[in-house]
Amino acid sequence: MKYRLLAPGPTPVPERVLLAMGGPMLHHRTPAFEQVFEQCRTGLQALYQTKNDVLILASSGTGAFEAGIASFLSPGDKVVAIHNGKFGERWAKMAKAYGANVVEVKTTWGKVTPIAEVKAALDANPDVRAVFIVASESSTGVRQPVEEVSALVKDRPDTLLFVDAITALGVWSIPTDVLGIDVLVTGSQKALMLPPGLGFISVSDKAWKAMERAKNPKFYFDLRRERDNQRKNQSAFTPAVSLMMGLREALLMLKEEGHPNVFDRHARLAKATRAAVAGMGLSVFAERPADSITSVQCPPTLNGDAVYKTLRDRYNITIAGGQDHLKDGVFRIAHLGYFDELDIITVVAAIEMAVTELKFPVTLGAGVAAAQKSFLGK
Amino acid sequence: MKYRLLAPGPTPVPERVLLAMGGPMLHHRTPAFEQVFEQCRTGLQALYQTKNDVLILASSGTGAFEAGIASFLSPGDKVVAIHNGKFGERWAKMAKAYGANVVEVKTTWGKVTPIAEVKAALDANPDVRAVFIVASESSTGVRQPVEEVSALVKDRPDTLLFVDAITALGVWSIPTDVLGIDVLVTGSQKALMLPPGLGFISVSDKAWKAMERAKNPKFYFDLRRERDNQRKNQSAFTPAVSLMMGLREALLMLKEEGHPNVFDRHARLAKATRAAVAGMGLSVFAERPADSITSVQCPPTLNGDAVYKTLRDRYNITIAGGQDHLKDGVFRIAHLGYFDELDIITVVAAIEMAVTELKFPVTLGAGVAAAQKSFLGK
Repeated sequence: MKYRLLAPGPTPVPERVLLAMGGPMLHHRTPAFEQVFEQCRTGLQALYQTKNDVLILASSGTGAFEAGIASFLSPGDKVVAIHNGKFGERWAKMAKAYGANVVEVKTTWGKVTPIAEVKAALDANPDVRAVFIVASESSTGVRQPVEEVSALVKDRPDTLLFVDAITALGVWSIPTDVLGIDVLVTGSQKALMLPPGLGFISVSDKAWKAMERAKNPKFYFDLRRERDNQRKNQSAFTPAVSLMMGLREALLMLKEEGHPNVFDRHARLAKATRAAVAGMGLSVFAERPADSITSVQCPPTLNGDAVYKTLRDRYNITIAGGQDHLKDGVFRIAHLGYFDELDIITVVAAIEMAVTELKFPVTLGAGVAAAQKSFLGK
Repeated sequence: MKYRLLAPGPTPVPERVLLAMGGPMLHHRTPAFEQVFEQCRTGLQALYQTKNDVLILASSGTGAFEAGIASFLSPGDKVVAIHNGKFGERWAKMAKAYGANVVEVKTTWGKVTPIAEVKAALDANPDVRAVFIVASESSTGVRQPVEEVSALVKDRPDTLLFVDAITALGVWSIPTDVLGIDVLVTGSQKALMLPPGLGFISVSDKAWKAMERAKNPKFYFDLRRERDNQRKNQSAFTPAVSLMMGLREALLMLKEEGHPNVFDRHARLAKATRAAVAGMGLSVFAERPADSITSVQCPPTLNGDAVYKTLRDRYNITIAGGQDHLKDGVFRIAHLGYFDELDIITVVAAIEMAVTELKFPVTLGAGVAAAQKSFLGK
């Protein structure tokens, strides 16, 4: 069987991007590479819909989020960490590792965080320095209310909004400047269609101002030093040159397709996937599903981990299983990045066969037909 | 002109490695990738000559060094930072950013740090938690006395030896375990012949023990978490998959050549380069030159920056200029990684032409002949 990758990162890398990364090594302090750097920066700003600096780091998205914590916060700072899944939990833990005073707004996995709870936490804690939210919680497939939370934070002069958009940016429109997002983080191996190894972080003027008083230790993740270098198309430390050659190409592909079309495509694929799930007699786990990943709730007669493993071992497909307590109860199909309609049909057909092998009653072709109807607008 | 890269990182990437990185993206939590991970780990251990964990990070070498400071030290810890160039200075600054009490053993750029000064610093500071040394100071091309310093530190139960071997590992033999090096750091884009984006760090039992009391904040660079994952061929955060595919191939190439042969090759290239420098009527800047990079001292009639720029603009060659106050007085030729004898001849010939254009009197072919004689053992 051919290898097929439908996990929420890494995602498939287009051939054009692979080839762009396969050229001879170029030194980073050359006019030729500075041009690549410039194109990456402006391409990212377009995707972020921002005039803010978007800094490029040689790290995963987790490292980029840490750069935000290290650069903009101090030990003892109060942080509201909104979480309803594994990634939201990670940022709360990370803030604690840096000595922050973390107020957790915790919601059951699969549910959307009620905006009233966020408002209550902010009202109860006027001295909050930062609010963390995960736009697309990959562990459950939930889309969180970034727009509503941003409206609550925007006018607070001493509170920064950190958005983990790692599986959201490039999937739907996130107008960073319109929403007033101070710190928006993403990674290379998601909708940006690159291998893992690059993290991206945008920084608002409010955040740069906050950095003046921030006392967390930082060096590799010192964003001021990066800013001062990157505005000159340099970086403080050796950049991941080959990945950035790929980044330029991937950003060009997204521009050629047109960002609104990229977002429409993701919406179309997500809608069809959800239709296919229903067509197979299953249901979507997330209360409000993100267009990046569809988490499927398994009934007691179907083991999610077995679906994941059957696809892996029998069909050479990597989807994602459930995480932590959801290991057996959920499986997840990612469709962010380099995917089209027929990729969705393919994975749905494989899932139909896999669950059939697992003795779960499904009408073969029913999920496929539901996806087809969705694509045809019927 | 073809592009030729002779800078101390990034260095040229062999075609085999480029191709290994150009395959379709693989998910990191698959048996296939776990095998790659295992091969990378054991290959690195062989090159490090260690039984210690060698951890692989998605960062530059600077990030890997920071992982050591974040993981093994606490604010207020006393650190002896030996430095005689830009990279040694960097680690002193980094330790200060983490609140360490830094005792600097500072030597003029280009000179070797006298071992007596290190001994005096250690004798005067019995409570030192760590000693930092740069094996190959790329800014000046000096090889530092790692062996002698390791003998001073080895038997101190509460002092860790951190070695920056970023442009040394894979160039000459550094027997980590024999020397008792606690923390040895390198990066992908040097002798390992890969693009930038991976950092490597070995950790001794003494360092793991020190971690139990270490209080610096850490999350992305929390090496205990990495250890616990990497021993299972996983990583705490998404690894740089494509670079690791390349790493496996590069380690295989080094193994096929034979590590002693790799070290001999570097010694041969370095010796010939130094002979060529003398043949051109110039001299080597470093008191004790490393085999990774040859820094050339410019007489008042030759501007080092002009040599660097002429090679760049006229011959499409990237060597390295001098750094900071050495900008005009030095230029540097790197020969670590994927290089052979004729690459040296090529760059020497280009330098002869460049300095001739700069009106510096050189006998064309004299440097080339000196390198040829060196290679032929004459």
